[in-house]
Amino acid sequence: MRIAVLGTGAVGRALAARLDGLGHDLVIGTRDPAVTMARTEPGGFGTAPYPQWQAGHPGIRLLSFAEAASFAELLMNATSGAAAMAALVAAGEPGLAGKVLIDVSNPLDFSRGIPPTLDPVNTDSLGEQIQRAFPAARVVKALNTMNCQVMVDPGRIPGEHNVFLSGNDAAAKAVAAELIGSFGWPPGSVIDLGDISAARGTEMLLPLWLRLMASFGHADFNFHIPHA
Amino acid sequence: MRIAVLGTGAVGRALAARLDGLGHDLVIGTRDPAVTMARTEPGGFGTAPYPQWQAGHPGIRLLSFAEAASFAELLMNATSGAAAMAALVAAGEPGLAGKVLIDVSNPLDFSRGIPPTLDPVNTDSLGEQIQRAFPAARVVKALNTMNCQVMVDPGRIPGEHNVFLSGNDAAAKAVAAELIGSFGWPPGSVIDLGDISAARGTEMLLPLWLRLMASFGHADFNFHIPHA
Repeated sequence: MRIAVLGTGAVGRALAARLDGLGHDLVIGTRDPAVTMARTEPGGFGTAPYPQWQAGHPGIRLLSFAEAASFAELLMNATSGAAAMAALVAAGEPGLAGKVLIDVSNPLDFSRGIPPTLDPVNTDSLGEQIQRAFPAARVVKALNTMNCQVMVDPGRIPGEHNVFLSGNDAAAKAVAAELIGSFGWPPGSVIDLGDISAARGTEMLLPLWLRLMASFGHADFNFHIPHA
Repeated sequence: MRIAVLGTGAVGRALAARLDGLGHDLVIGTRDPAVTMARTEPGGFGTAPYPQWQAGHPGIRLLSFAEAASFAELLMNATSGAAAMAALVAAGEPGLAGKVLIDVSNPLDFSRGIPPTLDPVNTDSLGEQIQRAFPAARVVKALNTMNCQVMVDPGRIPGEHNVFLSGNDAAAKAVAAELIGSFGWPPGSVIDLGDISAARGTEMLLPLWLRLMASFGHADFNFHIPHA
């Protein structure tokens, strides 16, 4: 499938590399490819400068958000929460219309320091904001409740654990679940929470996720929901 | 141990019955025992009228919040989030001072309908509000992330699952962990998240918890955090 991953950070790279390895035709979208390819400083979370990572993944092309969206049959939004809406506006309504858009981002606001706060919260979510702003996109909130290495390689966590899906389009959720399954998630590990307003709940997991990371001292964990 | 459970709803009853069964000297605190004992209507969530439940638990005494707090060596706040602060004010600073106070409540605001919103959120929590209002109480936030039947009988959910603890007093958390262990929680199932500000994260689980309950059609589930 022709897939565009929006965002050149750790999350975008992990998703793009995994999807490329699975044989998809992969592009990464960024605001300005020339600027991204001129970077010499490390990325966030100690990642290599983007051009260095790109050199190791010759099958993945870096395009503008709009070019990437036009190219793609399916998109994954892996930008930071603060950058998500601008990235999607740059991608453009025509490039998103009718396509499955898997939103992996979280609306974390670091402007007041650490820990970040969530905005929106409670009566809205970033997933809903995106769906409202792009009504023709088929938004599926998913994978936003775990580290990016766990997203693409669930076997690094022992035992069962879960991915939560929220979205208004059942067929889009089925496409997302199949793609997620191709990462190694076993049948039954995907929990469908219903419509896109359930993104409120999964985004609101982030404060606990951050505390768990502090308690464990690493990000190799995930949520599992055993039930009767 | 002399234990006071504050709150006569489903959560308070489940905790009090379990602790009574374990041989503790149990009282339940309520605003006005005479009013509570005059109730003929069912409680929330289809529970029996309080006097009917009380008749089945003759070893448990119903007292005012202040009497219950004075009596107790340890308290569990099982009031609704909206009622918690008033209940603790009625219990009174002297009755709480120096005592472990396990706060099981969640600040759910149903005033704007279903689903409820959380208030406070993000930069504060009900657990922190309680600790600030009663600095001499040894507040431990715990058990607020699951149905009350699961709190007192973890074996009803298959496999491993977790209880989160937050609090500023390590010795109080050790007391809480031991009491929780006596309900049947295995060693290792209790995750210490650090100081009381981690209550923000556990309270913010509630919106997802409510969506999961809707998805499963029942409340017999819990959060488990498998990790590497």
